[in-house]
Amino acid sequence: MPAAAAATLGDAELAQIDAQWRAANYLAAGQIYLMANPLLREPLRPGQIKPRLLGHWGTSPGLTFVYAHLNRAILEHGLDAMIVTGPGHGGPALLASTWLEGSYSQLWPEVSRDEEGMGRLFRQFSFPGGVPSHVSPHVPGSIHEGGELGYSLAHACGAAFDNPGLVVACVIGDGEAETGPLATSWQASRFLDPRRDGAVLPILHLNGYKIANPTVLSRIPPSELDSLLRGAGWAPSYVEGDEPAPMHQAMAAALDAVVADLAALRRHRGGRPWPMIVLRSPKGWTGPATVDGAQVEGTWRAHQVPLARVREDPEHLRQLESWLRSYRPDELFDDRGRPTAPVTALIPRGDRRMGMSPHANGGVLVRPLALPVVAEHVVEVPEPGAVTTEPTRVLGRFLREVFRRNAEQANFRLFGPDETASNRLDAVYEVTGKAWQLPPGPAGDHLASDGRVMEVLSEHLCQGWLEGYLLSGRHGLFSCYEAFAHIVDSMVNQHIKWLRVHREIPWRRPVASLNYLLTSHVWRQDHNGFSHQDPGFVDHVANKAPEVVRVYLPPDTNTLLEVAAHCLRSRDYVNVVVVGKDPAPNWLDAGEAALHCAQGVGIWEWASTHPGREPDVVLACAGDAPTLEVLAAASILRASLPELAVRVVNVVDLMRLQPAGEHPHGLGDREFDAVFTPDRPVIFAYHGYPWLIHRLAYRRTNHAGFHVRGYVERGTTTTPFDMLVLNRMDRFQLVVDVIDRVPGLLATAGPLRQRMTRTRERHRSWITEHGEDLPEVREWRWPRR
Amino acid sequence: MPAAAAATLGDAELAQIDAQWRAANYLAAGQIYLMANPLLREPLRPGQIKPRLLGHWGTSPGLTFVYAHLNRAILEHGLDAMIVTGPGHGGPALLASTWLEGSYSQLWPEVSRDEEGMGRLFRQFSFPGGVPSHVSPHVPGSIHEGGELGYSLAHACGAAFDNPGLVVACVIGDGEAETGPLATSWQASRFLDPRRDGAVLPILHLNGYKIANPTVLSRIPPSELDSLLRGAGWAPSYVEGDEPAPMHQAMAAALDAVVADLAALRRHRGGRPWPMIVLRSPKGWTGPATVDGAQVEGTWRAHQVPLARVREDPEHLRQLESWLRSYRPDELFDDRGRPTAPVTALIPRGDRRMGMSPHANGGVLVRPLALPVVAEHVVEVPEPGAVTTEPTRVLGRFLREVFRRNAEQANFRLFGPDETASNRLDAVYEVTGKAWQLPPGPAGDHLASDGRVMEVLSEHLCQGWLEGYLLSGRHGLFSCYEAFAHIVDSMVNQHIKWLRVHREIPWRRPVASLNYLLTSHVWRQDHNGFSHQDPGFVDHVANKAPEVVRVYLPPDTNTLLEVAAHCLRSRDYVNVVVVGKDPAPNWLDAGEAALHCAQGVGIWEWASTHPGREPDVVLACAGDAPTLEVLAAASILRASLPELAVRVVNVVDLMRLQPAGEHPHGLGDREFDAVFTPDRPVIFAYHGYPWLIHRLAYRRTNHAGFHVRGYVERGTTTTPFDMLVLNRMDRFQLVVDVIDRVPGLLATAGPLRQRMTRTRERHRSWITEHGEDLPEVREWRWPRR
Repeated sequence: MPAAAAATLGDAELAQIDAQWRAANYLAAGQIYLMANPLLREPLRPGQIKPRLLGHWGTSPGLTFVYAHLNRAILEHGLDAMIVTGPGHGGPALLASTWLEGSYSQLWPEVSRDEEGMGRLFRQFSFPGGVPSHVSPHVPGSIHEGGELGYSLAHACGAAFDNPGLVVACVIGDGEAETGPLATSWQASRFLDPRRDGAVLPILHLNGYKIANPTVLSRIPPSELDSLLRGAGWAPSYVEGDEPAPMHQAMAAALDAVVADLAALRRHRGGRPWPMIVLRSPKGWTGPATVDGAQVEGTWRAHQVPLARVREDPEHLRQLESWLRSYRPDELFDDRGRPTAPVTALIPRGDRRMGMSPHANGGVLVRPLALPVVAEHVVEVPEPGAVTTEPTRVLGRFLREVFRRNAEQANFRLFGPDETASNRLDAVYEVTGKAWQLPPGPAGDHLASDGRVMEVLSEHLCQGWLEGYLLSGRHGLFSCYEAFAHIVDSMVNQHIKWLRVHREIPWRRPVASLNYLLTSHVWRQDHNGFSHQDPGFVDHVANKAPEVVRVYLPPDTNTLLEVAAHCLRSRDYVNVVVVGKDPAPNWLDAGEAALHCAQGVGIWEWASTHPGREPDVVLACAGDAPTLEVLAAASILRASLPELAVRVVNVVDLMRLQPAGEHPHGLGDREFDAVFTPDRPVIFAYHGYPWLIHRLAYRRTNHAGFHVRGYVERGTTTTPFDMLVLNRMDRFQLVVDVIDRVPGLLATAGPLRQRMTRTRERHRSWITEHGEDLPEVREWRWPRR
Repeated sequence: MPAAAAATLGDAELAQIDAQWRAANYLAAGQIYLMANPLLREPLRPGQIKPRLLGHWGTSPGLTFVYAHLNRAILEHGLDAMIVTGPGHGGPALLASTWLEGSYSQLWPEVSRDEEGMGRLFRQFSFPGGVPSHVSPHVPGSIHEGGELGYSLAHACGAAFDNPGLVVACVIGDGEAETGPLATSWQASRFLDPRRDGAVLPILHLNGYKIANPTVLSRIPPSELDSLLRGAGWAPSYVEGDEPAPMHQAMAAALDAVVADLAALRRHRGGRPWPMIVLRSPKGWTGPATVDGAQVEGTWRAHQVPLARVREDPEHLRQLESWLRSYRPDELFDDRGRPTAPVTALIPRGDRRMGMSPHANGGVLVRPLALPVVAEHVVEVPEPGAVTTEPTRVLGRFLREVFRRNAEQANFRLFGPDETASNRLDAVYEVTGKAWQLPPGPAGDHLASDGRVMEVLSEHLCQGWLEGYLLSGRHGLFSCYEAFAHIVDSMVNQHIKWLRVHREIPWRRPVASLNYLLTSHVWRQDHNGFSHQDPGFVDHVANKAPEVVRVYLPPDTNTLLEVAAHCLRSRDYVNVVVVGKDPAPNWLDAGEAALHCAQGVGIWEWASTHPGREPDVVLACAGDAPTLEVLAAASILRASLPELAVRVVNVVDLMRLQPAGEHPHGLGDREFDAVFTPDRPVIFAYHGYPWLIHRLAYRRTNHAGFHVRGYVERGTTTTPFDMLVLNRMDRFQLVVDVIDRVPGLLATAGPLRQRMTRTRERHRSWITEHGEDLPEVREWRWPRR
């Protein structure tokens, strides 16, 4: 233990840092318990205790310890630093520390840095109408709530990318260290560029316990822990103990060494492990040692509220008061409740306070992306269906220009789990590589230490890095196989919840949206099969706050470009864009695409028949594969039933289907009825699970007329067209649906219906024998206008 | 490299193992390419090549190499072994290996072990109507499809639990090793008991590349890799190279050493690292070295189909034929296409063939759980609402008896991410502990090396372990905070997909269902707040195959016991049970609960008014918190509007709401109308997102009459009742909804409506001031019958 080896701190500094720490611990405990009498000017009375004791003491003293020491290091070394705190329920510690440094009162003036403000700080915590126990958007300097565990280190890395002067300290709880996302986050050491990026400083806090169990990393032999961390590319220093004075010396020494190591790493441009700290201290450190005869400090019993019956049990009340007074509040706060000079001596000023780091309120730093002109990338579409392109390949060229135009401001990255090339975005490699600090491979790998494409086979890391990158004021796009976006379901939940709250906080400025490009989608899993078929990510996000969620299903390349440009300009959203990567026909030229995307939903007159008439049936579609089938069905109907008035409607902005009162993009009822009619049958071919359309449209006048086709979990390894047949969304089935649902049509269209049904059957037997679609399916072409 | 150190294999054995490997490689490549001419009896012609070349060669030769060597080790040491193959698209290798050993033809007799069968084996692969490219349920000996990456090691551990004689070899791809779930899976070394459990043998296969990128673990310095693995509790042996003969020697020696190490580990009852193997071999090993001038073998270009234009390009065709002939098929297969003696010499027989392992077809081993009698655990309910219990605490006592009654057959485990005690199931600790091989902590930790409760702060590990445990023929329950079940969304997708296919395979026997207990649910997040509020896991699974998915929302303790017993008896399902852990009133006595659960949905006459009359309004509820509010609203209506006929309906089996044609549990339309009426307003209080009810019931006669309340993402840290108010599902709002929707009622009930609205407002201001609910809310009691 290096603790007592050399006195890094002089006596005065030691006293100051300890005062700062005691003050923060006092404030953390006070928040959990006190509704009144914040400075203990009188003996504690039960009525001054909150009626519901909610909060988590266990992790707090470790976090305040780290915060105080980072403060000292910032002053000592002139660091530009921010902090990410992974352990759950670290709220009290961060609220205390930011109140002490003054950032809290600066941003929330009603919680002033005096006795009255301290009273408010205490009362509001975990109180109805107050603030939650996590490090929520409400907390100055936070980009990481920590309500769900495991994402701290990924967020910290995201914030460090392209911020070469920044140190992102990241406290990792030993509980969250057991999660998968955190376990693989250590590999970030292979992706951080010491020249171009900032430093991430992991501080693994081993306090020994999670909610009710010891933690793995705190119990394995220290030699194994050291081996594990070194194997992941880190060089740990250890700060271990429970005596405050030697712990202060050890932590200060460790941080000084880290600063020196980081400087050396930058000088040598990598090639050595990144420094980190392992902090081993008791859970609930400095809190009640034993309660009712059971050990609390240093065990899982310190996780939440160490003294639980303070209002009812005079002994608990007495113990609480003695615990609070053990910090000697009269030394820490003056008679007006302001922190005293020793407490604030080692606290930085201005934007160097971690609570005021602009990187943690990225909206104040965000610079708009310089976007290429969409018109320079659009596909010429002389006739609908005449030209075939791979939508994502064209988008890749657009993104290449995004990289090119923003090279100097260095604020855009593309994230993907080993799929950028598979998703056909590889034009970007003409201007940037894939970030990679390990030995390069053969030519053609496109690896570069300063690459701006982040490829790692972990959706969790892609998502976490991107979130950190966005919240610190930059832009990005996550391209992912559609089915495997579910891997980050829970992460996107947390990000949407963060954004919903962040939007309500006056001092938080809008940040760039989180943009998903979901491709390699359910209808094109020719060689991947059933395990890769799941269009439900849209359903998942559609449950979330409508203020934040947007879903786009561009039917072709030009609409994709419009949607992508819109998403890259937007703020404070989660945008989900679903589109295929395979060659597909184009329907709209540049002007039509721009108009269609602006409207979000539109009648395609050119594909409809008898445009002057009220339609007999509406063929609606959302998604590229359904659009193709609907147009094919419409062409069959046009040829075979020329008297039938068919209206083709395409939906590119899915949230247009929701009522206007439910979603900001929702169509008004009158507009909706104008498009979908109040009473005609609507055959709706949808990209995903069909019931999502019902869930979005169930309040509409004509909802009972909606008949939706989509993916119904009938999948295997087969051709794209056969997938449609298996799920009954193929053109032939859609024609059958029309015939079955337009009143009286069966009488005249019986033979057509029979032909359609027979074609479906012939296809099934043909494909099983030949391994290919029925020739007439493959040869189908959209008839020209 | 230990390769040439000592000749583990004699000349004959070396020739035999190489013949087996070559045969498997030939069969793997043949599956990707050939529709005919499987034994190359004539020169290859383009028409014999499949029209669509789908498949993945890159990983295959490594997998066949491992399989052949495991075969030798099984024979040499009399092992009982099975194999889990993590790398994606390993299908060709496993299909080849099981066909060679005869298990494939035994289970799929039409694919016989002769020329005709080989032709079928080739043709069916990645062919419409054939078999997928993953190691799907169709493949003998598989419990792990590998379509989504990262779960192999967790599945292998699950299979090893409670199987002391078993060796579960687990090939881990270096791509999947980058995923979070795999990264934390290494920590299984802390949970496997060498006395009680089987051995897991990880074989980390570093072939250097994933789809389009090098892999992290293949490029870090070997010393770091070694450090990483040792730090995670494993002792790696290395088998590295590309020359077949020394590689065979090295692999055989490594496996012999592993067997010796495992024996020693068992003898010493732990205390040392588990052995594992690192296999470093080229991607696409033995395939085309270069194609069209570019290096293929040993690069990412070997990932899928190394020669892509075989039908069109004569040079590719020539190269394919020469590649296939390089395995010397005439030595490997006799004139009838059967494997020759050298090929089969080192293949085990009978159930020792890995394809025939009963552990990989768990249904043949599964023994029903001996379940305690529900009646011995039920709560006495003299009057509805008179008795309050914590539902999960009572369930914990039931589960304690499950452990007790099945102690001998040792086939039940409880899984939870550090939440078993928090979820109040801790009665189980009276009979078993938490599995833990590290140093024990202070008393009260309930840690035990042979504990049957699996606690680790990783939902991924809980899920993966449980899946492996179930598929190998055992039983389990996963208790999880409701919001964080989303962490395993994608895993449960894969498991449901597995079960759907498994149910269609004649030789697969039913396995125990995967049971979720989701508690600490959205309505009771008093100290956790917004980040812990998400009832959407039910929505997620409701999208999946109805053959597999079941969702239960027991309204109280006795119904929970009935549901839990039912789930633990069931087979081949994923059962999701959502219930609170906090003290809550009981409504149904034992008999009523049994009947109600058998029906799944029922009219609660005792809570309704004017039972003889057609109701004026239906108050429906699903979930414990909504049930309480509906009953409270019904009691207000009964007191204030005695003339109103109110019917109270409770739904415990959510899938009863779906049409009978959509889900096996769906109510017939006539029954549905009888319960919910064809035309009266239905005020439905639902536990989760309200639109799920619409999505399930949109085809019902009275759907337009449904008005659903639920969670609408309005959450924070506040009281449970305030959460209801914020989301407008509180009793007062429900009364308002009734008044607003029953035609003509407003005329008489205006004053009541006003009183309800005012009470809601008073509550909001009261709680903000006092931190507690309005006293009249807290004091509310269900009036006795």
